[in-house]
Amino acid sequence: MIPYNAPLEEIRFVLNELSDIDRVNEIPDVAGFMEEGLRDAILAEAGRFAEDVLAPLNQLGDNQGVQWSVEGVKTPKEFGIAYRQFVDAEWNRLVLPTDIGGQGAPILLSAAVRETFVAANKSFCMCSELTTVGIEALLHAASDELKALYIPRMVSGEWSATMNLTEPQAGSDVGALRARAVPQADGTYRIFGQKIFISFGEHDLTENIVHLVLARTPNAPEGSRGVSLFLVPKFIPETNERNDVVCSGIEHKLGNHGSPTCTLVYGDDGEGAVGWLIGQENKGLQHMFVMINGSRFNVGLEGVALSERAYQQALSYARERIQGKAVDGGKESVAIIRHPDVRRMLMFMRSQTEAMRAVAFHLAAAQDLATKHPDKALRQERQAFVDLMIPVFKGWTSETAVDVTRTSILAHGGLGYITESGASQPLRDVLVCSIYEGATGIQAHDLVARKIMPDGGQTLNAWLNEVQATASYMLENADKLECRKIGNELHKSVQHAEAAVAWVIENYPLHNADVLAVSVPLLKLLGIIAGGWQMAKAAVAADALLELGQGNNSFYQSKLNSAYFYTQHILSQSYTLSHTVLNGSSMVNSLNDDVFKQ
Amino acid sequence: MIPYNAPLEEIRFVLNELSDIDRVNEIPDVAGFMEEGLRDAILAEAGRFAEDVLAPLNQLGDNQGVQWSVEGVKTPKEFGIAYRQFVDAEWNRLVLPTDIGGQGAPILLSAAVRETFVAANKSFCMCSELTTVGIEALLHAASDELKALYIPRMVSGEWSATMNLTEPQAGSDVGALRARAVPQADGTYRIFGQKIFISFGEHDLTENIVHLVLARTPNAPEGSRGVSLFLVPKFIPETNERNDVVCSGIEHKLGNHGSPTCTLVYGDDGEGAVGWLIGQENKGLQHMFVMINGSRFNVGLEGVALSERAYQQALSYARERIQGKAVDGGKESVAIIRHPDVRRMLMFMRSQTEAMRAVAFHLAAAQDLATKHPDKALRQERQAFVDLMIPVFKGWTSETAVDVTRTSILAHGGLGYITESGASQPLRDVLVCSIYEGATGIQAHDLVARKIMPDGGQTLNAWLNEVQATASYMLENADKLECRKIGNELHKSVQHAEAAVAWVIENYPLHNADVLAVSVPLLKLLGIIAGGWQMAKAAVAADALLELGQGNNSFYQSKLNSAYFYTQHILSQSYTLSHTVLNGSSMVNSLNDDVFKQ
Repeated sequence: MIPYNAPLEEIRFVLNELSDIDRVNEIPDVAGFMEEGLRDAILAEAGRFAEDVLAPLNQLGDNQGVQWSVEGVKTPKEFGIAYRQFVDAEWNRLVLPTDIGGQGAPILLSAAVRETFVAANKSFCMCSELTTVGIEALLHAASDELKALYIPRMVSGEWSATMNLTEPQAGSDVGALRARAVPQADGTYRIFGQKIFISFGEHDLTENIVHLVLARTPNAPEGSRGVSLFLVPKFIPETNERNDVVCSGIEHKLGNHGSPTCTLVYGDDGEGAVGWLIGQENKGLQHMFVMINGSRFNVGLEGVALSERAYQQALSYARERIQGKAVDGGKESVAIIRHPDVRRMLMFMRSQTEAMRAVAFHLAAAQDLATKHPDKALRQERQAFVDLMIPVFKGWTSETAVDVTRTSILAHGGLGYITESGASQPLRDVLVCSIYEGATGIQAHDLVARKIMPDGGQTLNAWLNEVQATASYMLENADKLECRKIGNELHKSVQHAEAAVAWVIENYPLHNADVLAVSVPLLKLLGIIAGGWQMAKAAVAADALLELGQGNNSFYQSKLNSAYFYTQHILSQSYTLSHTVLNGSSMVNSLNDDVFKQ
Repeated sequence: MIPYNAPLEEIRFVLNELSDIDRVNEIPDVAGFMEEGLRDAILAEAGRFAEDVLAPLNQLGDNQGVQWSVEGVKTPKEFGIAYRQFVDAEWNRLVLPTDIGGQGAPILLSAAVRETFVAANKSFCMCSELTTVGIEALLHAASDELKALYIPRMVSGEWSATMNLTEPQAGSDVGALRARAVPQADGTYRIFGQKIFISFGEHDLTENIVHLVLARTPNAPEGSRGVSLFLVPKFIPETNERNDVVCSGIEHKLGNHGSPTCTLVYGDDGEGAVGWLIGQENKGLQHMFVMINGSRFNVGLEGVALSERAYQQALSYARERIQGKAVDGGKESVAIIRHPDVRRMLMFMRSQTEAMRAVAFHLAAAQDLATKHPDKALRQERQAFVDLMIPVFKGWTSETAVDVTRTSILAHGGLGYITESGASQPLRDVLVCSIYEGATGIQAHDLVARKIMPDGGQTLNAWLNEVQATASYMLENADKLECRKIGNELHKSVQHAEAAVAWVIENYPLHNADVLAVSVPLLKLLGIIAGGWQMAKAAVAADALLELGQGNNSFYQSKLNSAYFYTQHILSQSYTLSHTVLNGSSMVNSLNDDVFKQ
C-alpha cells in the first residue's frame, strides 16, 4: 500500500492566507461553519478518512478494476464497504444545501476536503461527485414531484446519479446527439439511443441509479437548440420495476480503473426506457450547463490532488532510495534526495502543486462569494471572475498535472516503469482530466470566445491589474531580495500577458482562426500567472509570519522557497508563451490539410 | 491494426540536405553503399518491412505481452515468425562490419532504417539491438577464441545478447554492484548474483543467449574500479549444457510489453554459472562504456521514432473524426483537422519530431565521421562533438517525446484514453527512454561535468558559433520574411545559450551542486537549439528548392512551415530556459531535506 498524508498544514495556510476566507465568512451561516476549531476538526477528520479508508484502496482499484457481466458491473467489494462508511460519515452531504439535508459547507471548505479524498482515491470519488452534480441539476430545473421523489434518496447516498451526454458521433459537439425521447399520453417520455463514456453508468455501490439523459423530442430543432434533459431511473421508484436501460459494456482504459466507464443502451427492448422531462423542452443543454463551472472546477481540482499524490510518492522514494555519493563530497552513499537534480524535480512538482492548490481555493471562495455573498456588486464581480477563470484553471491544472505526475515517474528511476510500484497511477489517472468536461482546446476556445471577447477583456484586465498590484507591493515593500525578485518576475509576466491579451482582442474579430490557433498557449500563460500571483502572495504572507516568529519557521521558509523556485522555473515561461501568442499563429491555418501529410 | 507509414520523403530530405552526407561519402567503402539508388532502395525495403511485418504486431505485443514460466519466457508466436524474416533479410547485419559478415552500412543509414523499425514496433527491435551492442563489446575487448566462438552465431541472429549491469542496490551507481566472479583453475570464472531489469534476458526468439555480465572478482577494489566484464552463455557452446543462470521472473511494466524485462539469477545451484572474462580484470566498466554513446544514441532515436508514430496516429484520427463546425463558418460538420487547436497540436508534434530526426541523423553522421573518416583532424573534431551532443540528444529527445506522445492522446479526445484505440501505447512505450541508459539527470550531469567543463566549453562554444553562422546567413540572405524571423529567433537563442554556458563554466568549480540543480534546463536549452538549428537549415534548403521549382513544392512548403512553427512555439523557450539556468539554482540545495516534507 502506498501511503498518503493529507497536507493539512499547507491546506490551512492556503485557506487562511490566500483564499479570501474573510469575505467568505461574511456569508450568513458560513462563519459558524468556518470557525477555525470546527473547520480544522473537519479537515483533520477528512484527512484521516482519506489516509485510512480511501488511500489503501487506490492501488487495489487500479489493479483489480471493475467487472462487467450481463447482470451488471461489480466494483471491488472493498469499495462497497468504503462507500457505506463515506455515506455514514455524511461526507457526500458536506456541500449540499441544508434544506435538503445537506451540511451547507462553503465550496471553499468542500474543495479542501475533496482534494484529500481525490488524492487518496480518484476513481472512488467519482460516484458521489456525480451524484452531487445530479442533485444540483434537479434542484435547478426539475419539477417539485421529481425533486420530492428523488432528491432525498440521492442526498442519503442510497441512489447515485450519472450524466449522459456523449454518443459515438457527439463528443465535444454535444448538439450532434441523436438519442430520441418520444412523449407519452401520461406525460412521461420513452427514451431510445446509445450513450458512451458514462462514468458510474452501472455499478453496485447504490440501490438505484438516476440517469440524467440528453435527448431530442420529435421535431426538435437541429443542433444544441433541440436538446432536452430527461431523468431515467435504473429502477422506477413507484413500481421498483427495472427500466429499459442496460449497460452493454465498459471501457478498458489507461487509468481510473476503479471507475466504470459505461456504454448505456436505452430502449433496446423496443418500447423505450421510461423518462421524465427535467425543466423545459429544448433547454436541456442550458439546464445541464448550469453545473458546468462546478464540474470543470472539480476536474481541475483532480489535477491538484493527483499532483500532490505523485509528489508525495516521489518524495518518499527520494528519501529512502540510497544511490550514489553526494556531489559535494563524502564517501558514503546517500539518499537520492541529496542529488541536485532530484531536488529540482521535487521542487518542480511541489511548487506547481502549491500554486495550483492556491488558485483552486481562491477560485472556490470566489464561487461561494458569487452565489451567496450579501453584497450584490461583489457577487456580480466575483461571478465574472469565476466565469473567466474556470476554463483557465481546468485547462492549466489538467495539463500541468501531466508534467508533475510524469516527473514523479522519472524520479522513481527504473522502478517508476514497474506496475507494482504504483508510480505511474497518478499519471494514468490524471491523463483523462485534460480530456473530459471539455478538452484543453475547448477550454481555450471558451476562454477567448465567451470569456474574454464579450466584455472586451475588461474582467481579465481588471484581474491583471490586481496581479500587478501584488507585484508592485513586493517591489516596493519587500525586505528580502528573493521577494523583490519574485515581484520583478511577476511584474514582467503581467506585461507579457497584457501584450498577448491586447493582440487577441484586436485580432479575434477579423481572424478568429488565427487567435484560436494560439488560444491554448494563451490559456497556459494566464494559468501560470494565476499560480505566480498566488505564490507571490504566499511569499508575502510567509515573510510576515517569519517576522512574527511564532509559527513553524521551517514551513514558512519552505513557502518562500517554493515561491522563488516557481518564479524562476515556471513563471518565467510567460515570456515564451506571450511570444508564441504574438508570433505563433500564422501558418497553422493557412495551409492545405494535405501539407500535414507530406 | 494501426497503420504506420515510413516517412521516406522526409527521411531522404534530411539525409540529403541536413545530415553531412557529403562528408560521410568521403569515407572509403561508404560512397558505394550510399549511392542514391541503392540507398533509396534499402530505405524503401526497410519501410515496407516496418509497415507490413513489424507494425501489425505492435499492438498485439502490447496487449498480449510476454509470458513467464519456470521453463522460460514466451514471446508472442508472431514475434518469432517476424524475427526469422528480420534475420533472413539480414536487417540485423546492416551496420555490422563486413569482416564479420556484416554489411558495413554507415550509422547514418542504419539510423534512418532503425527509426522506421522502432516506430513500427519498439519492443521487437530491442532484441536485435542488444545483440548488436553485444557484438561490439566482444569486438572491442574479447579474446580471439571467444570472438571466434560467439560472434558468427550472433551475426547470423541465431544467438542474442544481453547487458547485465543493474542490481537492486546498483542502478545509476553501477559501481555499487555485488555480483561475484570466482576464478577457476581452468581460466574460467564462476558467477554468483542477481541482476534485474535485463531486457530480453530470457526469451524464445533465439537458440542461445549471450549474457554480458558485470561482476567483481575476489579482492577487487571497491566501487567502479573493481568491476569486470564476463561472458555467460545460457547454453555452453562446447557441451550444449544449460548454464546456471535462470530467469526468476519478469516485470509488469507501463509499456514495452512485447519486450521481457527479466530478473536473472546466477549460480543459484551452488557452483556458480560458468563465465569467461572479457578484456582486462577491473576494466569491465570501461569495456562496456565503449558502447555508451551508441546505446544512448539509440535510445534518443527511440524518442524520434515513437514521436513520429504518435503523430501519425493523431493525424490519421484528425483527418477522419468528424466533429463540430469550422470556426470560419459553414453549416456542415468537419473533420477535426479543420479546428485551429487540433492543427496546433499536430504542428507541435510534427515540428518537434522533424527537429529531433534532423538532429539524430546529423549526429549519426558525426559518429561515422568520428570513427571512419580519413582526415584525423576531422575525426577528432567530430568525436568531441559526438561526446558533447550524445547526452543532449538522449535527454532532450526522450523528454520531448513524452510531450509529443502525450499530445497525441489528447488529440484523440475521449478515444485517447481507451486501451483499444492504441493511442496511449507510444507514450507508455517511450516513458522508459528518459530512464534507461542513464536517466535525464544523469545525462545532464555527464553533459556538465564530463563534456563542458573538461575543455572549458570550447567544443560547445565552437558549435554555438556554427549555429550563429546559420542564423547570420538567414538574417542577411533570406528573401522570405519567415526565414528572416527564423534567423532572428535562432540568433537570440544562441545569445541565451552563451549566457547560460558562461554562468555554468564560471560557477561549477566552486558551486557544482548549484550548477547541477539547473543542469537539466541547460540540457533542454541546448537540445532545443540543436533542433532549431536543423530546422533553420531545413528552411534554407527548402527555400532554395522551392526557388528551383523542380520538386514537391507542397513538401518544401511544409518544411518551411514546420521550421517557422518550431521557432515560434519551441525555440522561443530558450529565453525561459536560460533564465532558469541563471536564476533558478539557489534554494534547491541550500535547504534542509526536512523542508521538502513540510
